Amino acid sequence: VYGLNIGEPDTAPPEVFYEGLRKAEHQPVPYEAAAGFPPLRDAWASWLNRSLKIDTRPDDFLVTTGASEALIFSFLTCCDAGDEILVLDPTYANFAGFAAMADVRLKPIELAFDDGFEFPPVAALASEAGPQTRAVLLCHPNNPTGAVPTAQQLQDILSFCESRNIMLIVDETYRELVFDGRQPLSILQIHPDHPGVIVIDSLSKQFSLCGARVGFVYSANQAILEAMDTLAQCRLAAPSLAQRASAHMLQHLPSGFSEKRAIEFEARRDALVQPLANHPNVDVHNPAGGFYAMVRLPVENAADFAAFLLTDYHVDGCTVQVAPAEGFFVAPGLGRDLVRVAFVCPPEELTAAAQILSSGLDAYQER
Amino acid sequence: VYGLNIGEPDTAPPEVFYEGLRKAEHQPVPYEAAAGFPPLRDAWASWLNRSLKIDTRPDDFLVTTGASEALIFSFLTCCDAGDEILVLDPTYANFAGFAAMADVRLKPIELAFDDGFEFPPVAALASEAGPQTRAVLLCHPNNPTGAVPTAQQLQDILSFCESRNIMLIVDETYRELVFDGRQPLSILQIHPDHPGVIVIDSLSKQFSLCGARVGFVYSANQAILEAMDTLAQCRLAAPSLAQRASAHMLQHLPSGFSEKRAIEFEARRDALVQPLANHPNVDVHNPAGGFYAMVRLPVENAADFAAFLLTDYHVDGCTVQVAPAEGFFVAPGLGRDLVRVAFVCPPEELTAAAQILSSGLDAYQER
Repeated sequence: VYGLNIGEPDTAPPEVFYEGLRKAEHQPVPYEAAAGFPPLRDAWASWLNRSLKIDTRPDDFLVTTGASEALIFSFLTCCDAGDEILVLDPTYANFAGFAAMADVRLKPIELAFDDGFEFPPVAALASEAGPQTRAVLLCHPNNPTGAVPTAQQLQDILSFCESRNIMLIVDETYRELVFDGRQPLSILQIHPDHPGVIVIDSLSKQFSLCGARVGFVYSANQAILEAMDTLAQCRLAAPSLAQRASAHMLQHLPSGFSEKRAIEFEARRDALVQPLANHPNVDVHNPAGGFYAMVRLPVENAADFAAFLLTDYHVDGCTVQVAPAEGFFVAPGLGRDLVRVAFVCPPEELTAAAQILSSGLDAYQER
Repeated sequence: VYGLNIGEPDTAPPEVFYEGLRKAEHQPVPYEAAAGFPPLRDAWASWLNRSLKIDTRPDDFLVTTGASEALIFSFLTCCDAGDEILVLDPTYANFAGFAAMADVRLKPIELAFDDGFEFPPVAALASEAGPQTRAVLLCHPNNPTGAVPTAQQLQDILSFCESRNIMLIVDETYRELVFDGRQPLSILQIHPDHPGVIVIDSLSKQFSLCGARVGFVYSANQAILEAMDTLAQCRLAAPSLAQRASAHMLQHLPSGFSEKRAIEFEARRDALVQPLANHPNVDVHNPAGGFYAMVRLPVENAADFAAFLLTDYHVDGCTVQVAPAEGFFVAPGLGRDLVRVAFVCPPEELTAAAQILSSGLDAYQER
């Protein structure tokens, strides 16, 4: 089974990560500082500043247990129970879970497949924002669509948030993975030190460190950062071993690491998306970033097709697992003809998987 | 400065932990299963069954990011916003933070210094429980008091919870650290498989692995476990490296490890508590477990005395840092004449620290 369903890179983390891990051997395993292991905060700010040509300070970041915890902290800090956050629809499915934990309501801003799931105009946000709206939450490159906003789109959304006095939370977990000559784009380049901005980040996708559970939350707003630090104190600390190894990794990362990795994933994208695009009944966009593509199929129920592939279809003993896309939509009933595919394995496997998906679709329609 | 203020053992984790860590080298760092790395769940259930002579199954546990996350999951699962949980007063200070995150109110059951902070009779719980009460939360050995309940006391509290149809959440983070010939006591020995029981556990204190962030939550109630698993899925996974190393550690733990460690901490307790008890103006109980003691001082404001020790008092250049105990009380105004001391360094240092604390008290009173 070619697993196109899960967003977890098959590549190993950089060798310097393990070098850092060896340094942790035979050391005590103490609680790190609640805000994060100081050398990691330093190394992260330096790396980000080099990558984005900005000037953040280590004190502007807290280390979190993955982007997951950064998101929970953000929701709890920006909202009281019953408040609302505007989100792109579709977007990262677990936003809904974090909202449930924080007793926050997500209000979807519907994006259209036929527009390449492009980021919404301000008018779309304005028509959904209400008196309980406390924030806009973006993920870019967006999971599951791979859509990347322009700097102007981000600026417009930030201006809208300013005009309503609400926060802009930007999940930049996939930021470095952008294709076709694009440079990584951050809200921090557009407006450094904006008190209305929170940035969510993670080592998971950009360094193949999903299991490390090391994320970051950025805010230049001292009140926000202090409120998050109170939450951080309460849960004591993020994981020690991964923080120590990651600090060493970021201090010793080979130059060009992220650029090479983006090129590697661009080749993977092409290996998966081009063969799918050749199928006359399949619609697929070339994602501008991330490692997912949304695929529209001529079926009524993509979940049923996904199940068919697993149970009733194979080519030379192989089949493909895809993620039905309905789960990525907040609004009910959307995305029933879509699947999300992830390009997280070698190109030759992805091309083989695309061919199985295509011929499987033909077989499904001919049943 | 002798740091008696923080509850973090100075001892190293067992060597087999690092052996497990070396096995993780050059391996991918994937998301583990949301419920935990299966070999760790197996090893934990086996170790617990050996230690407590019980018969739990690996499927009864979720691995969490420290006991912290186990507590948040428990609060979110047992309560809706505005519900109440009864807690011992004093108890672990961060319970209040988790309650704030989950929008739950803690109702304190006041314990008395002069009774050795003994666990409360059922009548005390009954008089505080109301229609919004969803659970009783115990920590034993209790932090910060070191008090340990009898099996009968636990049974009585469980019966009370049954009669009110509310949950009993038991934080057994310090369970193996019991002194004076006591055996580790678990609610799971008293009533295995009780659907109204949740047990919180952690490797932090019992294996000197505070920074690993590996905890566990136990429930034999499938509905509870499934609700917690939904929360676990949302945050993806607990830390991979620490889970892998811990699984190896538990599989290869030298026999008698916990017993030896309890004896080591008993000697530390004696080195700290006996010299303090000799001071005519100091009241201190011999804690039955854990690694904290509560000390009553003839002062109006223990926080002021703690600050005095740090800024205005030293013996041969050394002084002592203690934790003012007011922060461990939920009810306002309690514990102002108490400090918590932790015995987490070698006995000779603890005895020296006790002497500085005693002579510092005399100096403080003579000012």
